[in-house]
Amino acid sequence: RRSRTSGISAKLDIRGIYPPITTPFNHNEQVDYNKLEENLNKYSKVPFRGFVVQGSNGEYVYLTSEERIEVVKSVSKSVAKDKLVIAGSGCESSIATIHTTERMAEAGAHAVLVVTPSYYRGRMDNRALIQHYTQVANASPVPVILYSVPGNTGLDLQVEAAVTLAQHPNIVGLKDSGGDITRIALIIHKTQKEDFHVLAGSAGFLLAAYSVGAVGGVCALANVLGTQVCQLEQLCISGQWEKAKDLQYRLIEPNTAVTRQMGIAGLKQAMDWFGYHGGKCRSPLCPLSELEAKQLNSIFTSNGWLSHF
Amino acid sequence: RRSRTSGISAKLDIRGIYPPITTPFNHNEQVDYNKLEENLNKYSKVPFRGFVVQGSNGEYVYLTSEERIEVVKSVSKSVAKDKLVIAGSGCESSIATIHTTERMAEAGAHAVLVVTPSYYRGRMDNRALIQHYTQVANASPVPVILYSVPGNTGLDLQVEAAVTLAQHPNIVGLKDSGGDITRIALIIHKTQKEDFHVLAGSAGFLLAAYSVGAVGGVCALANVLGTQVCQLEQLCISGQWEKAKDLQYRLIEPNTAVTRQMGIAGLKQAMDWFGYHGGKCRSPLCPLSELEAKQLNSIFTSNGWLSHF
Amino acid sequence: RRSRTSGISAKLDIRGIYPPITTPFNHNEQVDYNKLEENLNKYSKVPFRGFVVQGSNGEYVYLTSEERIEVVKSVSKSVAKDKLVIAGSGCESSIATIHTTERMAEAGAHAVLVVTPSYYRGRMDNRALIQHYTQVANASPVPVILYSVPGNTGLDLQVEAAVTLAQHPNIVGLKDSGGDITRIALIIHKTQKEDFHVLAGSAGFLLAAYSVGAVGGVCALANVLGTQVCQLEQLCISGQWEKAKDLQYRLIEPNTAVTRQMGIAGLKQAMDWFGYHGGKCRSPLCPLSELEAKQLNSIFTSNGWLSHF
Amino acid sequence: RRSRTSGISAKLDIRGIYPPITTPFNHNEQVDYNKLEENLNKYSKVPFRGFVVQGSNGEYVYLTSEERIEVVKSVSKSVAKDKLVIAGSGCESSIATIHTTERMAEAGAHAVLVVTPSYYRGRMDNRALIQHYTQVANASPVPVILYSVPGNTGLDLQVEAAVTLAQHPNIVGLKDSGGDITRIALIIHKTQKEDFHVLAGSAGFLLAAYSVGAVGGVCALANVLGTQVCQLEQLCISGQWEKAKDLQYRLIEPNTAVTRQMGIAGLKQAMDWFGYHGGKCRSPLCPLSELEAKQLNSIFTSNGWLSHF
Repeated sequence: RRSRTSGISAKLDIRGIYPPITTPFNHNEQVDYNKLEENLNKYSKVPFRGFVVQGSNGEYVYLTSEERIEVVKSVSKSVAKDKLVIAGSGCESSIATIHTTERMAEAGAHAVLVVTPSYYRGRMDNRALIQHYTQVANASPVPVILYSVPGNTGLDLQVEAAVTLAQHPNIVGLKDSGGDITRIALIIHKTQKEDFHVLAGSAGFLLAAYSVGAVGGVCALANVLGTQVCQLEQLCISGQWEKAKDLQYRLIEPNTAVTRQMGIAGLKQAMDWFGYHGGKCRSPLCPLSELEAKQLNSIFTSNGWLSHF
Repeated sequence: RRSRTSGISAKLDIRGIYPPITTPFNHNEQVDYNKLEENLNKYSKVPFRGFVVQGSNGEYVYLTSEERIEVVKSVSKSVAKDKLVIAGSGCESSIATIHTTERMAEAGAHAVLVVTPSYYRGRMDNRALIQHYTQVANASPVPVILYSVPGNTGLDLQVEAAVTLAQHPNIVGLKDSGGDITRIALIIHKTQKEDFHVLAGSAGFLLAAYSVGAVGGVCALANVLGTQVCQLEQLCISGQWEKAKDLQYRLIEPNTAVTRQMGIAGLKQAMDWFGYHGGKCRSPLCPLSELEAKQLNSIFTSNGWLSHF
Repeated sequence: RRSRTSGISAKLDIRGIYPPITTPFNHNEQVDYNKLEENLNKYSKVPFRGFVVQGSNGEYVYLTSEERIEVVKSVSKSVAKDKLVIAGSGCESSIATIHTTERMAEAGAHAVLVVTPSYYRGRMDNRALIQHYTQVANASPVPVILYSVPGNTGLDLQVEAAVTLAQHPNIVGLKDSGGDITRIALIIHKTQKEDFHVLAGSAGFLLAAYSVGAVGGVCALANVLGTQVCQLEQLCISGQWEKAKDLQYRLIEPNTAVTRQMGIAGLKQAMDWFGYHGGKCRSPLCPLSELEAKQLNSIFTSNGWLSHF
Repeated sequence: RRSRTSGISAKLDIRGIYPPITTPFNHNEQVDYNKLEENLNKYSKVPFRGFVVQGSNGEYVYLTSEERIEVVKSVSKSVAKDKLVIAGSGCESSIATIHTTERMAEAGAHAVLVVTPSYYRGRMDNRALIQHYTQVANASPVPVILYSVPGNTGLDLQVEAAVTLAQHPNIVGLKDSGGDITRIALIIHKTQKEDFHVLAGSAGFLLAAYSVGAVGGVCALANVLGTQVCQLEQLCISGQWEKAKDLQYRLIEPNTAVTRQMGIAGLKQAMDWFGYHGGKCRSPLCPLSELEAKQLNSIFTSNGWLSHF
C-alpha cells in the first residue's frame, strides 16, 4: 500500500487542480474498472495535483458501500505516486462517515472529502455540523477536507462553522462549490492563521477564487479540459491576470453546461467527445436529450474548444 | 411469513392513520430492538391502520442497508396481522431502490414508500422521476407509495409526474409531506379515475387534506398523540367538521414543533414524556437544548396535552 | 359620500367573497373608467360581499398615487351601498401608507387592505411589521386588513406578528395569499378570542381554508367565475362538503392559470372570454403569447367552464 | 443647469467608485437637505467618480415622486462638475420609469440607474424586461444603467437579457448587486464587443469583480469608508493584487454588516461614527437594537477601522 502523509503531525499540502472524476459504467450500469483506468491513464499527462474520487460528479450516492471502496482502491493503484488521491467519504450519519473514512484510508486515499450531511437540513446547524466534522476528523487516519455543495445539499456550511473547524489539526481545507465569492474570501481571511486551504469547487469562478486567496480547484470541467484548467491555475499563480481572464471567460459556459445546467450526463457526454470514457449515468439520471446534446456541443464550439460538426 | 396483498391484481387499500415510527438507539447509537418492540406494543392499543417504518422520522438515512432490513423484519414480527407495514425503501439510485424494495418485501413489508431521489435535484425532472418510479414499481413484489417530502429533499414530485405514475397498476398512492393543499387537491382531482390514494404527510394539515379528498395520514405526531390523530381521522370521516376543527387546532403547534421546528430530536423527546421510548438520535442530529426542551414542553402544555411541570 | 362603519367602536364584518378587481386600460395604457364601471355593473348580479380595489391584481404598483385614489372613487360611486369597498392602500413607507389610507377612506373605501412592505425584506422582521401596521391602524379612519402575499413580496407575515396585530381594535382581518393551510389554521386558532377574520387569498384553497375556519376569500378567479366562487362559499357555509369538493376541484387549474402561472395577463384574457373587459396590462407586463392563450383556453375548457372553440 | 453627456452619440464612461448615498431625515422623517449637502461636502475629498442617488440605500421606495426629484436636484447642485450624478429612476411600470427618468435628467442626472421591476416577478421574464428597458432607454435623454439587486427584488436580470440590452446605444452598463461572480464574468465576456461596463454592486466582491473585468463599484460601504474603497479600486487597476487582497479582506465583514445583515440602519449608524450624517431611516425600517449596534461596532473594530470604545 502506498505511503500516506500523516494527518496529525503536519498538514497535507492540497494546493492544485483536481478533476472530480466520473465513474464509468458498462451497459448493465456496473462500474467499468477498465474504462476508469483508461481515463486515469489519459489524465496522467495533465499536471493535476491529484484526483478527487467520489465528489458529486462521481455519482457516489449511486454506489454501494462496497463499490465506493473498490473504486478508490482502483484509482489508488492506477495513479502515479506523486498524485494525491482524495476520496469522498461523506455519509449522512457520523458513524457511517467515520467507518467509510477509515476504509477509504485503507484503500489508499491520502485525504478524505466530507460533504455536509443534509437530509435533515433544518437541524444541520453549526452545532450539529461542528460536532459531525470534529468526530470524523478525530477518528480519521488521513486529513479531512470539508465540502460544501449547496446545489446538491441545499445547505451551505456556515462561515462560523468553517472557521471553527479550520482549527482542528486534522482538517486541512474546504472545497466550496457554492461560488459565493464574498463568503469564500471571508473564510480565507478568517483562517489565515491556520494551516487551512480553500479549493474552488468549480471552474466557473476559479480565477476569482484565486484572486481572493484560494489555492486550487476541484473542477468538473477538468475531466474534459484538464490542461486548460491547469493553465488557468498557472496564469493565476504567476500573476498573469489578463491572460487568465481571457481563458477564464472561455471556460464559464462549458463549465456551467456540464454542472448546473446539464449535470453529470452533460459532463460524461463532453468526455466522450474529448476522448475519455464518459458513457451513461446510473438511473434515475437520464442521458441528455438530443436537443441538449446539440446545445452542449454548440457551447463547446462557440467557446473554441470543439470544431463545428 | 405473513400473507401479503398482491400489488398487481388488486390495489391495496391504504386508507387510515400511520405513525412513521422512530428508531430507538441505545447509548452506543445501536438500534435497540427491545425498545422498538415495546413501542409497538404500546401502539397496538391505538386504532392505527398500520406503521410506516423508515419514513424520514425513522432516521433511515442513518441506517446501514442491513439495519434497514432488520428493523422492518423486527416490526413485521411484532405487529398484529391486520396492521399494514409500509417500509421506506427509497435510495438515490434506481438499482439500489429496487434491491432494497425486494428485500423489504421479503422482510414482511406489505407496501413500500419510495422517497424521491434528490441529490442531483437539478436533473430530477419529470422524465427522470417517472422513469425511476416506473422501474421500481415494475420490479416491486409489493405495492409502491410515492413519497414527496420537499422539506428534506428540496424537491417536490410534480403534479404531472404523480398523475402519470398513478396509472401504474403497482403504484397505489402518494404520501405528500409538502402541505401545499392546492397541489394535494389537484392531484386527487386528476387521479380520481385511478385506484390511487393520497395520504397527508403531517398532522398539521390533516383535516384540510381530508376536506379535499385525502384518505389518511402518515403523521410524526401520531408517535406521541396517536389516539388523538385517529380521533381527528374519525371526525373527518364522519363529517363532524366543527369538532374536527377544534381538535385540529390543538394539534398544529405540537406537530410543527416535532417536525419542522425541532425535528426528530423533538419528536423523540415528546415520546419520552408520553411513555414511549424516544431517546437520542444518531449523530449528527443533536438532542434538544434545554431551552428547546422547555419550549417544546410549553407547546404541549398550552395546547392541553401535558400538565404543567 | 357613502356612510362608513367606524373602525374603532365595532369591528367590521368582512365575511364573504370579493373579486380583487382588475384595472382596465385603454390603448394608451390609461385607466378606462367606463370599462371599469361596466365590469362592476356586470358584477352587481353576483352575490359578492364587496370588491377589493387594488389588490395585487389591480396592478396597483403601476398606478400613480392620484390614479389609485381616482379608481377607488370611481368604484365607490359605481357599486351598490350594501357592498363593501376594500381598497389596497399599502406603500413601502409607513408615512405614505398612512397618507394613502386616509385618502382611500375619503374616496369611499370601507376598509383598507395593507400589503406588507417588502423591498427591504431582510429587515422586515416582526418588530418592523408590527410597528408599521400599528402606526397605520392607529391613524386609519377605517378598519385595516393585513395582507400577506409572498408570491409577490417574497415575504410572509409571520404568525406571531399576525396574532399580535389581531389585538388591535382597528385591525379586522388578514388576507392570506400564501396558501400554507397549516399556517392559516394556526392564525385562526390563535386569534379566536379576537374579532379577527381570515380571508383566503385565492380560489385554489378556498374550501380548505373554510374547513379550518376562514370566513371568505379574495379570489382573482372571482373576476371570471364569480358566481361559481360564491357557490363554493355557500356549499362550505352550509356544510355540503362533498359538493363543495367537486366544485373546488374544477376551480383549481383555472385559478392557478390566472394567478401563479400566467398572472394578470391571463386573468384579463379570461375576463375577455367571459364577457368582462379584461384587455391589456400596463408595461412591463406582457400579453399572453399565443401558446399561453391556447393553454389557458384549454384549462377552462377541460374543467367545463368554456366550450371547445 | 450643468451640461450633460449625450446618451446617444457616445457612450458615457462610468468607470470608478460611487457611494450609493443615503437620504438623511430629520426627526419628523422629512428629508434634511442641509445634512445631505454636508455629507456631499465631506465626500468631495474622496476620489469618487460620482454619486449614485437613490440606489437601494437611498430609501428611494420611501420617497414620494416629488422628493425623488428634489433630492437629485439638490445633489446635482452640491457636487463638483466633474462628478457623475447617477440617479435611480426605476419604478414598477414602464410609463412611470420613463417619466421619472425624464425628470431626473432635467434635475441634473448624467445617467439613470434602473432597477428591475419585480412585484410581478413571476412574469418578469426576459421578454418583459427587455421590453421594459428598451422602452426606457429609447425615451431617456441620458444613458441608462441596468440594475439587478436580487436581495431586494427577488429577481436576477438574466444573462441573456443583459447581453441583448447591452447592444442598445443608450444602455451603458449594469450594476450587479447579486454577487454571483461567475455570472458577472459571463456577462462581461459576452458584452466585450459592446461599449458596456459592469459595476460591482457591493464592496464585498469588488476585487473579485475587478479580476474578471468589472470597472468600478457602487458600494454602500463607500458611504463610510470611501477612501479605502477607492484605494482598493486603485490597487486593482494598478495590478497590486496582493495588497488589494489584504484590503479586500478587511472590508468584507463591515460591508456585509451594513448591507445584508443590518441594512440601511446599520449603514447610517456607521456613518454617524465616521463623521457623516446617518441618522434614522423612515419607518418601517427600525433603528439598530443596542445589541446590533454593539456587534456592528465590534465588526468595524476587529477589522481595524474603529478604535475600541
